[in-house]
Amino acid sequence: MSHAGLITSLTSMVGSPGVLTDESILPYSTDWRGRYSGKALAVVLPSDTGQVAEVVKRCAAEHVSIVPQGGNTSLCGGSVPLPKGEQIILNLSHMNRIRSIDAVNFSMTVEAGCKLANVREAAEEHNRFFPLGLTATQKVCEIGGNLSTNAGGINVLRYGNARDLVLGLEVVLPDGRIWNGLRGLRKDNSGYDLKHLFIGAEGTLGIITAAVLKLYPRPQSNATACVAISDPDVAVQLLAHVRANCGDTLSSFEIISRSCLDLVFRHIPNTVEPFGKQYEYYLLIQVGDVLPGELDKALLVALQSFGPGVLELSVTADADHAESWWKLRKNISEAQKREGVSIKHDISVPVSRVAEFIARADSALQIAFPGIRIVAFGHMGDGNVHYNVSMPDAGVNKAFIAQQEGAVNKLIYAVVHELNGSISAEHGLGQLKRDTIRDYKDPLELELMRKIKQTLDPHGLMNPGKVI
Amino acid sequence: MSHAGLITSLTSMVGSPGVLTDESILPYSTDWRGRYSGKALAVVLPSDTGQVAEVVKRCAAEHVSIVPQGGNTSLCGGSVPLPKGEQIILNLSHMNRIRSIDAVNFSMTVEAGCKLANVREAAEEHNRFFPLGLTATQKVCEIGGNLSTNAGGINVLRYGNARDLVLGLEVVLPDGRIWNGLRGLRKDNSGYDLKHLFIGAEGTLGIITAAVLKLYPRPQSNATACVAISDPDVAVQLLAHVRANCGDTLSSFEIISRSCLDLVFRHIPNTVEPFGKQYEYYLLIQVGDVLPGELDKALLVALQSFGPGVLELSVTADADHAESWWKLRKNISEAQKREGVSIKHDISVPVSRVAEFIARADSALQIAFPGIRIVAFGHMGDGNVHYNVSMPDAGVNKAFIAQQEGAVNKLIYAVVHELNGSISAEHGLGQLKRDTIRDYKDPLELELMRKIKQTLDPHGLMNPGKVI
Repeated sequence: MSHAGLITSLTSMVGSPGVLTDESILPYSTDWRGRYSGKALAVVLPSDTGQVAEVVKRCAAEHVSIVPQGGNTSLCGGSVPLPKGEQIILNLSHMNRIRSIDAVNFSMTVEAGCKLANVREAAEEHNRFFPLGLTATQKVCEIGGNLSTNAGGINVLRYGNARDLVLGLEVVLPDGRIWNGLRGLRKDNSGYDLKHLFIGAEGTLGIITAAVLKLYPRPQSNATACVAISDPDVAVQLLAHVRANCGDTLSSFEIISRSCLDLVFRHIPNTVEPFGKQYEYYLLIQVGDVLPGELDKALLVALQSFGPGVLELSVTADADHAESWWKLRKNISEAQKREGVSIKHDISVPVSRVAEFIARADSALQIAFPGIRIVAFGHMGDGNVHYNVSMPDAGVNKAFIAQQEGAVNKLIYAVVHELNGSISAEHGLGQLKRDTIRDYKDPLELELMRKIKQTLDPHGLMNPGKVI
Repeated sequence: MSHAGLITSLTSMVGSPGVLTDESILPYSTDWRGRYSGKALAVVLPSDTGQVAEVVKRCAAEHVSIVPQGGNTSLCGGSVPLPKGEQIILNLSHMNRIRSIDAVNFSMTVEAGCKLANVREAAEEHNRFFPLGLTATQKVCEIGGNLSTNAGGINVLRYGNARDLVLGLEVVLPDGRIWNGLRGLRKDNSGYDLKHLFIGAEGTLGIITAAVLKLYPRPQSNATACVAISDPDVAVQLLAHVRANCGDTLSSFEIISRSCLDLVFRHIPNTVEPFGKQYEYYLLIQVGDVLPGELDKALLVALQSFGPGVLELSVTADADHAESWWKLRKNISEAQKREGVSIKHDISVPVSRVAEFIARADSALQIAFPGIRIVAFGHMGDGNVHYNVSMPDAGVNKAFIAQQEGAVNKLIYAVVHELNGSISAEHGLGQLKRDTIRDYKDPLELELMRKIKQTLDPHGLMNPGKVI
């Protein structure tokens, strides 16, 4: 079926530089990890909300489905088209205005196509802080995508997920009408909270075109600790201890297994062991405060009062020193990539059960697949572990992954499920986990999700084949 | 139409002490302010979630609608039946167990009928803090109602509304099925976020029977300031200044107009002027921190560095001294009640526009109704003003309210609407504002709300006549 008329019509709406149909489509059709590659009729790049609405209306009239796209950094195939070549990619990147900043209200109104890094910078120019922090992608990813996937990152412990940073939304609905919910209110109990439906829906219920974001006071003093421990169980107890003692100043509590560091030292130049000795697990702990104060001393006191279990520790208020530790954490994904493919997981369990998860998953995997290499790290403070496995021998690893990925997933997800956890903590479902989630989520919850999808998008035009 | 069979059947489900049909129904049928009085077939008090589900199924089979009820402290008629006498009040008060506390996960699982004060105490017993604070009602109101109405209160500036304090929910749906969403996860991106649909829906989409709540570290040091200012505009600027300087330690920023204090001194014993002189407006500012530190000094420094506009100020770290100021704030509602009836508003605007709201509303009211008394106070830090008006002469006040309430509301809501605010900040819509909201909310948003209601409660059995 030809859609030449549709393309002509969309071009007349957004102008010809805003419609791509030749090979320039390719980068928009392939996902961040190079795992999903789809085909699209065209990429359309509207420059304002009115144009988005027009494009959606026109596509709806022709029953052509739409893949909303921001920076295309989805890790689960959520932002690329399906293979059939019958979809339009609606990319929001040209809508990148900071519409306004209200420093007194601690809020800013931004368009979906603003890069996360630009949002953070704009806030800083007004002496405010936007806390969403995605170290690997924030120069590329866009705020519309961050909200559509309810992004997590390194500051969730203190500031919450992307969802928690939103006061209001502007959304183009599947029929092309515009819902203007751009309210900058801290309290509003005047009906159902619609914004939370669209946040985290991965573009399957409508297209987020703009948002009112919460801003925070800028932390002025920081301190960072690197702590060596023998066992994740110590980390669980230490987290509760530090939180109770350092309170809301605690913004990051990351865990790194020895296997992560080995890969980083092998592949990333200018990285060094934090301590003279090697240990099984490391923690990176960061505190920050608006009030001036000797936070490094407070953090040191908290860590030293913990008792046995801490094998070695170092605390610094020096940003460069802290960055040398953070460099290890931030390069784990890159080091893994250079080492070869692996089976990746983004799971969460209650914070109190992270150690139990790691112990049970490690043990089950070692029994089922002797010699398997487990690279475990992540946002311990949020109960969110990135738990990636591969065979250390590159010669057998590819075949192992091809043959055993399903079995490995099943084994790990079973542990997650028993601990009342989630098989997708911060990355979302996308295409990757759309089928798998049906095995783990309460059928009643899936039914409610389907009913909501049917209600808001009865013709299934918004990002079909993703989530639900 | 007789429902004798239904009552018999419900009694067999929950036992006879759990079904009230005689005059003992009365306190359940009349609202907190004595403004709404309905009639019910019966009050049913189930003792567990299974019983709630059975009761709902049975009522659904007979097309009898249900009014979910907690502590019955709604200020807008949300928790009492309609006058026709054909509804069942499903009161959750017998479901008052703290199911579990996970201090390491900073979470607790509670049943809907737990009193808010008991939830807070249980958290404290585990050295944790549950921040929802409703000074007037927390010994009476129940957590299920707090969540169903997305309660606000005095700690929203720092910790958010009730909505922000929830990790998971258990809900009995309008057809009697139980959705178990009791997950204690900080990150979970595995589908649409259903819990936010039920939170703040005032029982119109289902019945919240239990919840997993977020806990926080307990603040160990506190300081409170009382500040006299000439004008709400100073308050707006001072709030931004204190937030930027004291950061997340700032938990309350309340404004009180002179008229409030006059009423408090007239009606509440043992209350005293904060300062030797009288001023037009007062602020109560509270900071708290887990870290030990001289917060009173930090707050004093922040206030003193503000510049002109602050007329007099006092800061204390002494809890009794602070309580003498809070006593003034907490007794405003009671003092108003003793003074006589008034037209009450619970509005919100962006924090940066609170002064503009007060100035414009004051001026419009004084022109339309010369001599009118305006009692303005509230959660300045959340842009939430309780703005209550009456005629100071008791002889004419009753007639004034009877004749002019609609005109007064219209005038005030017009200002709110122009400032992109909400006519219900924290109390909800209930019966009181169900019709009015249609004049101010985007018809598209109302349409989406109706569609969601229709999807989840197609037979309209959940709290009809409220919200939508």
